[in-house]
Amino acid sequence: MLEEFFSPGSVAVVGVSREEGKVGHYIFDNLLAAGFAGDVYPVNPRAADIHGHLCYPNVSAIPARVDLAIIVVPAPAVAPVIEECGQRGISAVVVISAGFKETGPEGAALERDVLAAASRHGIRILGPNCLGVISTSSHLNASFAPSMPEQGAIAFMSQSGALGTAVLDWAAGEGIGLSRFVSLGNKADISEVDLVRAWTDDPETHVVAAYLEAVSDGRGFVEAASILSASKPVIALKAGGSDAGARAVSSHTGSLAGSEQAYDAAFRKAGIIRARSVQELFDFAVGFARQPLPAGPGLAILTNAGGPAILATDACEQAGVGLASLESETITALREALPPASALYNPVDVLGDAPPQRYEQAAAILAKDPNVRAILVILTPQAMTRAADTARVVVRLSKSSGLPVFASFMGKAGVAEAIPVLREGFVPHFEFPERAVITLGAMLQHRRNIDTPRTSPVAIAGDRSTVRAAISHAQAAGRTFITEHSASRIAAAYGIAVPAGGIAEDLLAARTLAADVGYPVVLKIASPDILHKSDIGGIMLGIADEAALNAAYEEIIRGVRARMEDAHIWGVTVQRMLAPGREVIIGVNRDAQFGPLLMFGLGGIYVEVMKDVTFRLCPVTAEEARAMLSEIRGFGLLRGARGQHPADLDAVIDTVVRVSALVTDFPEITELDINPLIVADKGAGAVAADIRIGIGG
Amino acid sequence: MLEEFFSPGSVAVVGVSREEGKVGHYIFDNLLAAGFAGDVYPVNPRAADIHGHLCYPNVSAIPARVDLAIIVVPAPAVAPVIEECGQRGISAVVVISAGFKETGPEGAALERDVLAAASRHGIRILGPNCLGVISTSSHLNASFAPSMPEQGAIAFMSQSGALGTAVLDWAAGEGIGLSRFVSLGNKADISEVDLVRAWTDDPETHVVAAYLEAVSDGRGFVEAASILSASKPVIALKAGGSDAGARAVSSHTGSLAGSEQAYDAAFRKAGIIRARSVQELFDFAVGFARQPLPAGPGLAILTNAGGPAILATDACEQAGVGLASLESETITALREALPPASALYNPVDVLGDAPPQRYEQAAAILAKDPNVRAILVILTPQAMTRAADTARVVVRLSKSSGLPVFASFMGKAGVAEAIPVLREGFVPHFEFPERAVITLGAMLQHRRNIDTPRTSPVAIAGDRSTVRAAISHAQAAGRTFITEHSASRIAAAYGIAVPAGGIAEDLLAARTLAADVGYPVVLKIASPDILHKSDIGGIMLGIADEAALNAAYEEIIRGVRARMEDAHIWGVTVQRMLAPGREVIIGVNRDAQFGPLLMFGLGGIYVEVMKDVTFRLCPVTAEEARAMLSEIRGFGLLRGARGQHPADLDAVIDTVVRVSALVTDFPEITELDINPLIVADKGAGAVAADIRIGIGG
Repeated sequence: MLEEFFSPGSVAVVGVSREEGKVGHYIFDNLLAAGFAGDVYPVNPRAADIHGHLCYPNVSAIPARVDLAIIVVPAPAVAPVIEECGQRGISAVVVISAGFKETGPEGAALERDVLAAASRHGIRILGPNCLGVISTSSHLNASFAPSMPEQGAIAFMSQSGALGTAVLDWAAGEGIGLSRFVSLGNKADISEVDLVRAWTDDPETHVVAAYLEAVSDGRGFVEAASILSASKPVIALKAGGSDAGARAVSSHTGSLAGSEQAYDAAFRKAGIIRARSVQELFDFAVGFARQPLPAGPGLAILTNAGGPAILATDACEQAGVGLASLESETITALREALPPASALYNPVDVLGDAPPQRYEQAAAILAKDPNVRAILVILTPQAMTRAADTARVVVRLSKSSGLPVFASFMGKAGVAEAIPVLREGFVPHFEFPERAVITLGAMLQHRRNIDTPRTSPVAIAGDRSTVRAAISHAQAAGRTFITEHSASRIAAAYGIAVPAGGIAEDLLAARTLAADVGYPVVLKIASPDILHKSDIGGIMLGIADEAALNAAYEEIIRGVRARMEDAHIWGVTVQRMLAPGREVIIGVNRDAQFGPLLMFGLGGIYVEVMKDVTFRLCPVTAEEARAMLSEIRGFGLLRGARGQHPADLDAVIDTVVRVSALVTDFPEITELDINPLIVADKGAGAVAADIRIGIGG
Repeated sequence: MLEEFFSPGSVAVVGVSREEGKVGHYIFDNLLAAGFAGDVYPVNPRAADIHGHLCYPNVSAIPARVDLAIIVVPAPAVAPVIEECGQRGISAVVVISAGFKETGPEGAALERDVLAAASRHGIRILGPNCLGVISTSSHLNASFAPSMPEQGAIAFMSQSGALGTAVLDWAAGEGIGLSRFVSLGNKADISEVDLVRAWTDDPETHVVAAYLEAVSDGRGFVEAASILSASKPVIALKAGGSDAGARAVSSHTGSLAGSEQAYDAAFRKAGIIRARSVQELFDFAVGFARQPLPAGPGLAILTNAGGPAILATDACEQAGVGLASLESETITALREALPPASALYNPVDVLGDAPPQRYEQAAAILAKDPNVRAILVILTPQAMTRAADTARVVVRLSKSSGLPVFASFMGKAGVAEAIPVLREGFVPHFEFPERAVITLGAMLQHRRNIDTPRTSPVAIAGDRSTVRAAISHAQAAGRTFITEHSASRIAAAYGIAVPAGGIAEDLLAARTLAADVGYPVVLKIASPDILHKSDIGGIMLGIADEAALNAAYEEIIRGVRARMEDAHIWGVTVQRMLAPGREVIIGVNRDAQFGPLLMFGLGGIYVEVMKDVTFRLCPVTAEEARAMLSEIRGFGLLRGARGQHPADLDAVIDTVVRVSALVTDFPEITELDINPLIVADKGAGAVAADIRIGIGG
């Protein structure tokens, strides 16, 4: 897909300029400088030639087939050029020009014109308002980025052109190879989803890195990225998480950022590794590109100094990277090979005077230990240190061991000769050992992602017609929520346990119902006009017998009448009073980008004050639901802390899965809250004591 | 203090070596290479001269006064040399030699010998097992570190020699100046406390940075660092926080790391900024050394690219750095000065084609805004960017504005010429803008530290004799805890509210007491042999009247007798039953390094499952107590969430302060738990429902 962008046979640049300092000049310079092997056609009606290449007055005048057109003419002139491209059969166009949606309504109109012309001819557009595209395997630099990276394994897309430039500049400076670079610009047509799809089967690309400010098609992105991340690591830096940051995004790209929770849940669902800074984006990409994935946890640290090893060990704990527990044979072999004062247990300290040979001996022993799945070699420049030779040892270790190997040679001048050795040997080098550990943590996360079987959501055979009828009924009545009794029936239709009961139109019916479900019972006012029943005294709990029922019925009806005399009252809901249990909340909100987002947490104050909740995108599988339970800080309360019996976790998981199925099957449901779900002890189930469902038009 | 170490007039090196590769050779080389202006006396009985300097056979043979001796002879020979130094009147000695405490019991004995010799002659010892000392103002490099830093404002101490070397190497490579560098080694005599004291009045030192693995004298350190941090920023990187890291420390230095909570509390008390990585230690030190402190929050971001500004804005939220809200005059001036597409609200985006002049105009406008207290200038290398000239603009801004100014010029080759300009202009430069923001966050933390008036703990005039008697009584009885009734009396002696009540030896006395305090009451078994009363049915709550009292009394006595027939029973404690309220816990544990550490949290599951607690070192001031309350996640429950009335926060604060005074006055108290303190609504007080006090011998 998008082959014309990455492997074109010929390129036209529309709007080249002979004037230095103009974008149309830079672009053409870059194209020639990168050594693109195909034909190049500059287009400019007011120039005869540029750098010895004949200029064509317009696209139609180009005498041969053109695969890719790069457009740098002013915004109002772009749509006509696209039209011309279409007539010439060009199907891939990069619009570098700015002055579109990002400038306001007039620009947005121009952008619509461009898209209209493109879709008439089936043209794919990258941009507008972008830096361009680079494809190293084709020696194609169709961008005004000043640096052309080396050929490599990493494909990088950036929603910020400037950040893209900086990353290209670093990549060039650090000798990090890229396969593709794409500046997304305004994403009028080609978006991150298209690139994710294109790079899934791209043999040149082994790692995908992205800087994103907002995703255009959330569901499509998650779906495409899930497929990509099953075979290649995908790393994303998502900006605009803060409130202030979100404002900056809005003013910058005119797009709305989705909520942080939704992005976190989406990235998790898609198997995307989230970088928290440009540094991490870079570190992770290099780690994935240059070293094999670890087979599992178990890092060995090899060092000539204690302090940095302690810092690395501290970082292991924070990054969830386990230190390898060395076999006794390994300890014995290390004891024989190393000086007496060495530290033999992981971290292995070969002491400040360690020559390269000592590192090599210790590394060989560590690499043989089956518990060691990755090695971090730390070096500090001390009096006897031979940094470059030790770097050669590390490179040999990396090549021979088959393990992921990282280096942190600390300092400047004292390790300056070693750094290029490591770089040329494809060993990722980190100025500080903590960064190596965090990078390994990201690689372990990807390892877990691909090792975890991808399970499909359990199919829930809900009684759709009941739900459909209830929703239609509410819609017909012009309501944006489902009444309580109806919400209970919807839940029951999807197998969610609800209290026994029903609506009673009068006291007599209430008595009959109460006798049916058995005392104690709960009474709630049943009215299409009353959403927050407890606020107006519309709920009475723990009604123990018929006498109490008589009194409660009168009190509710009288109280509600007094407060809301115009409310239409159907009667009262009579429900069996639930035995006390642990209370949890299951809620769903529909995110504009990613669709239904399911929240789980402990009920009441745990949600409201402690904000102890966790999120997943729907559909939620049983495995995801189980993970959600264990993610909240208060999980101990469910598992059975303080001598309590464990709660019925399976019933909670089952309810989560059923809620997910319900909201997935019915996009009309915009929000849903089960609050509380009352969870009994293990084996005894969970019942939705209160359900609130909001619906869209 | 320690002047001889930092400004000696003459230096002897005992154990110089003519053999390259030996530490005794390096040290002498370094001493000469750094250009030390005073006299230098090499000592080696088997060499005539070294580098043209006459060698002396021993210290006694040196013909002139020696201020500082550097010892590099083997460990067993060190103590005799110290003795010799003492006889020659040398009062400052650096012992580079290893082979002491770090190697085991024999080495520890040698270290004791060294200390004994030193104390006989009043000699101060740095080391042993250290890298040495550097003092740039004296051109003194008495270390075997390969790099001599430039003269500068930062004093750095390191408990890891190797990490020290790496930091020196970075400092040299980045052109960062140091005033002093000290490798602490085994800290046989001179510890971090001595250096903190020495650097408080050191005119060459404006910023103190430390890498620490454990503090030797916790209370002394906090006291000395509090004084130092009132005038100079103190930054510490404390390693060994993780469990695994703590093990690495133990095997590395033989010292025990204190608990993380205690270190956090100690650093907070002492006004120390805690760095979380070497990178941060470095970034913070440079920020403090090169820029003025911000007057308060209010960062302006000036950029030529949106993406990096969003990342910086995100980091602001995480680091607690507020973005400046620009005055309308500022916006107007920016609108007039900048191209129409510029972003005028903070972050201010001067667009990708910004020449240095545009940066300069915008910066001048921003610097005039009274809400702007710091400026971060971001640059990405784009086609028209003139990075070096823009760097000159930033340097001028830094010099003229009086504001702290930071730069993040992103990329490698595209900004390479700009970096030295920034460095020479003393503008801290960060490869990534997030790091600049985090550094500003650290500077703001110091600003708050020095702006917050240091209040002394309120003097609590406790009834000491009552407490003393209760403790003595328990000690005399051989108990390690105070019985409940006695603990209540101790608390009451310090003004902590306890339930009305007392011990009743028989049922009749219980009835009288209950009538006195008023029903409902609580009965608890009173026995010196029973610590966990509820486990054996020794507590009955909510006793409503005399009939219930009779029954409860019999049941408790019978039940306890049945379960612990040998227990000595004094009778029962009768207490007024407290009205329900919000439950909090106030606990104290005595940390080995830092003394009593006070914990505050919500009671019950909030502590046990949610671990929602916060710590301070005692004595805790009222201001600190107030801060503790607001730090816990569940603070909303106390402040009055979900329509509840606010709890009596002042009563909680008062109790915290009184507990702190009690445990500070009585070091015999090793632990104390008030669990729960029942807190009534605002104005209605807080009562310690249960108090447990543990005592030492």
